[in-house]
Amino acid sequence: MTAYEDLTAHARETMALGQIAGRLGWDQETMMPRGAAAQRGEEMAAIESVLHARRTDPRIGDWLAAIKSEDLDDVGRAQVRHITRSFERANKVPADLAATLARVTSTAQGTWAEARSNDDVAAFLPTFEEVINLKRWEGQALAAGEDVYDAMLADYEPGTSGADLAEMFNEMRPELTALRAAIIAAEQPKRLEGRFDESKQMKLTRQLAKTFGYDMSHGRVDKAVHPFSSGSGLDVRITTRTSETDPFNCLYSTIHEVGHACYEQNIDRAYLLTPLGQGVSMGVHESQSRIYENQIGRSRAFTSWLYTQMVEAFGDIGLDDAEAFYAAVNRVNDGYIRTEADEVQYNLHVMLRFDLERALMSGDLAVGDLEAAWNDRFAADFGYEVDKPSNGVLQDVHWPVGLFGYFPTYSLGNVYAGCLNDAMTQAVPDLDDDLAKGDTTAATGWLRSNVQTYGGLYEPRDMIAKASGMEPGPKPLLAYLNRKFSDIYKL
Amino acid sequence: MTAYEDLTAHARETMALGQIAGRLGWDQETMMPRGAAAQRGEEMAAIESVLHARRTDPRIGDWLAAIKSEDLDDVGRAQVRHITRSFERANKVPADLAATLARVTSTAQGTWAEARSNDDVAAFLPTFEEVINLKRWEGQALAAGEDVYDAMLADYEPGTSGADLAEMFNEMRPELTALRAAIIAAEQPKRLEGRFDESKQMKLTRQLAKTFGYDMSHGRVDKAVHPFSSGSGLDVRITTRTSETDPFNCLYSTIHEVGHACYEQNIDRAYLLTPLGQGVSMGVHESQSRIYENQIGRSRAFTSWLYTQMVEAFGDIGLDDAEAFYAAVNRVNDGYIRTEADEVQYNLHVMLRFDLERALMSGDLAVGDLEAAWNDRFAADFGYEVDKPSNGVLQDVHWPVGLFGYFPTYSLGNVYAGCLNDAMTQAVPDLDDDLAKGDTTAATGWLRSNVQTYGGLYEPRDMIAKASGMEPGPKPLLAYLNRKFSDIYKL
Repeated sequence: MTAYEDLTAHARETMALGQIAGRLGWDQETMMPRGAAAQRGEEMAAIESVLHARRTDPRIGDWLAAIKSEDLDDVGRAQVRHITRSFERANKVPADLAATLARVTSTAQGTWAEARSNDDVAAFLPTFEEVINLKRWEGQALAAGEDVYDAMLADYEPGTSGADLAEMFNEMRPELTALRAAIIAAEQPKRLEGRFDESKQMKLTRQLAKTFGYDMSHGRVDKAVHPFSSGSGLDVRITTRTSETDPFNCLYSTIHEVGHACYEQNIDRAYLLTPLGQGVSMGVHESQSRIYENQIGRSRAFTSWLYTQMVEAFGDIGLDDAEAFYAAVNRVNDGYIRTEADEVQYNLHVMLRFDLERALMSGDLAVGDLEAAWNDRFAADFGYEVDKPSNGVLQDVHWPVGLFGYFPTYSLGNVYAGCLNDAMTQAVPDLDDDLAKGDTTAATGWLRSNVQTYGGLYEPRDMIAKASGMEPGPKPLLAYLNRKFSDIYKL
Repeated sequence: MTAYEDLTAHARETMALGQIAGRLGWDQETMMPRGAAAQRGEEMAAIESVLHARRTDPRIGDWLAAIKSEDLDDVGRAQVRHITRSFERANKVPADLAATLARVTSTAQGTWAEARSNDDVAAFLPTFEEVINLKRWEGQALAAGEDVYDAMLADYEPGTSGADLAEMFNEMRPELTALRAAIIAAEQPKRLEGRFDESKQMKLTRQLAKTFGYDMSHGRVDKAVHPFSSGSGLDVRITTRTSETDPFNCLYSTIHEVGHACYEQNIDRAYLLTPLGQGVSMGVHESQSRIYENQIGRSRAFTSWLYTQMVEAFGDIGLDDAEAFYAAVNRVNDGYIRTEADEVQYNLHVMLRFDLERALMSGDLAVGDLEAAWNDRFAADFGYEVDKPSNGVLQDVHWPVGLFGYFPTYSLGNVYAGCLNDAMTQAVPDLDDDLAKGDTTAATGWLRSNVQTYGGLYEPRDMIAKASGMEPGPKPLLAYLNRKFSDIYKL
């Protein structure tokens, strides 16, 4: 066997074990009996320890060295690029630091949940300080003298820097705050109100999943506290949630997760259980979930069809026609919570976090000053004060569990979705006619063959550039948002 | 750290990984999307390969050698006994043989299922010959010059030999065939007939599981094609099945699996994720499932309560009173299929398989002669001819997947349950009064504190001897069966 064959056989088994760890995570959120948590913790630790040993296996270094003399095609070079990155990353972080981080962030999640439910920032500060110190230590190990935050970004979005993102956000912020202000000052459309049977929501949500091309023979839809997508290849499962008074939460969570899941399901099967057989980055992943959810799912054309489905499922839903339904789906509300934000305000929530986490990691912002910094920035961008920490600095689980550099990939996903949407609407001229019939085949088919099928073959920005035919940037997204919301709100 | 601490820490992680493999098996039968099978095959192979490497880790040999000079208590010695057995077993089988067996038996399962559905023995013979040759090769490696079949038994029931079992079966066979003949000649009680809503069956089955002490906070009940119990410690899940015309199948499958599951749930939590934290053998495991299902679940006292639950759930069930219900639950029917057999005939099915598999392994019976040998023996014990292979030699999955030495543990479980039942009825004088109220607490409590809590601490026969206060043997079971069925059938 060649070194390349040895290396990829090893990586394949590691990938299979990684899928198992993911499946355990799914089980934990959906099926696991509540008394099993302690045992599951040990099981997860055991498989993570196996995975860590495999990722740092010194034979990988030998194989990578030997491969330099082997002749590889594009696919082979991409596989080697992913494996090299993972191997170097795993070896940069000392094993005892990795173990301490795993233990501390696991405990921190509980401390944070408690602090959030009591709106008690002070109770979380000592733990948070420990998490931040450990993450900075890890960041320094990863950065090896370069920028710490950039090194963290590389875990989620290789090829992007803090400076790139700052430039992107600087372009977006004034336009979005201006659009937001104009909308808030305009007349608000009617909300969706009433009570909606939750089993009917689940029935409609499963139908929507299929409408967007989700393959139920390689997936399933369950309820969980948080919607998520899990797994790659032949077994990609999603969860959603229901609330009797808010069916949009269920339906649009499903469409969002279906976007993630279809990306994983539609990767070229030749890459199954290889490093190329997964979405290439968080940003590109989010571009798929967002374009399914927003540019397609919240379009006037598609919501006109969805309106008929809602009326069929629930009878009179208190909105006069498809146009009123379209406005209700896209209603922009004041609110503190990122996960409940609309297309216009979502990125304002993200850029607030981006600036603060970058300052935390550089040491420019002390953890003791974080709450005040959050509240000041929120008031500046949204025009009203944060009322309590659970609506402010304590709202997200990301920082407590050590995810720094993750938030900006949400906005990157929106920006990429904007670029892809421009290209998709040009490539599929009858798109709106199809969507108005509840037919997403042409749209999802274009995304499948221009993005999803490639898996990890191209670098994230290159992938979007290749698919959209443009250098990725926020202009298409901003133009789309201005167009769409100026129309809905008659600005 | 002492060698013992190193050894048991290593074993603990292996146990945790083993639990993960078990959970994947559960998922495959309950939740997995049908298109995921190929990927799941690779995932299972990956975790099995990790487990095999851990079980043969040469450090285990070093630790075991070093431990000889350490001072251990009873628990420590039992842990070391289990680990030694597993280590020696894993090292005796050459890796390439183990891999070939895994591959061949996996394929054989499909070939067998196809042959069974076509009633075509000839189509399965070449594969079956390959399986048997590989199993004999493995048996010879395990036996190291001793008896091959005994070496296979040690995988399921350490401390038992083929000769022991032959003696046990020789004592049982004449009594059981005589009892069976008398029953078949007697007047048959009325059957349960009608249609029983399957969702009501599931509701009642969950209630029954709780009635028998199954802890839902550490388990769950789902439907699957085959009923089974899966997992140890804090996460022990069971499955059952429903048939509209046969609610007994659902209810008694559940009680049976609850017996297995309670054994695993009730092991001393100090043994969690250690080699002692699992049922000690297949025979002792089956003793728990059988005593729950039969001596308790099919008793006159318990069925008098179950009758009221059935009437409450389904209305008129076509049986006049609790006594008619008791007779219907215990009705002895002619039939070819082991899994559908009653308490009297079940062991006749097992001893047929025991004699044939022992002869296959010794080489006294050629695979080409197996069908004829099966049919002759069946006619001799049951008094009528096998009508087709799917009702005869092709009915069970065990041999196709390489399980030789497994069948007799079913009867051993019955025999052990007979011993335990004698001791339990003496220790719990008001047992029937409790069971007639649907209260199994005293019975299951006795089994919990006299058997289940010990997990793997004692050797299987020692465990039964300690709990029952007698040398394990078939007499109590035979006396119980004669007593019970002479009464029901007025012999």
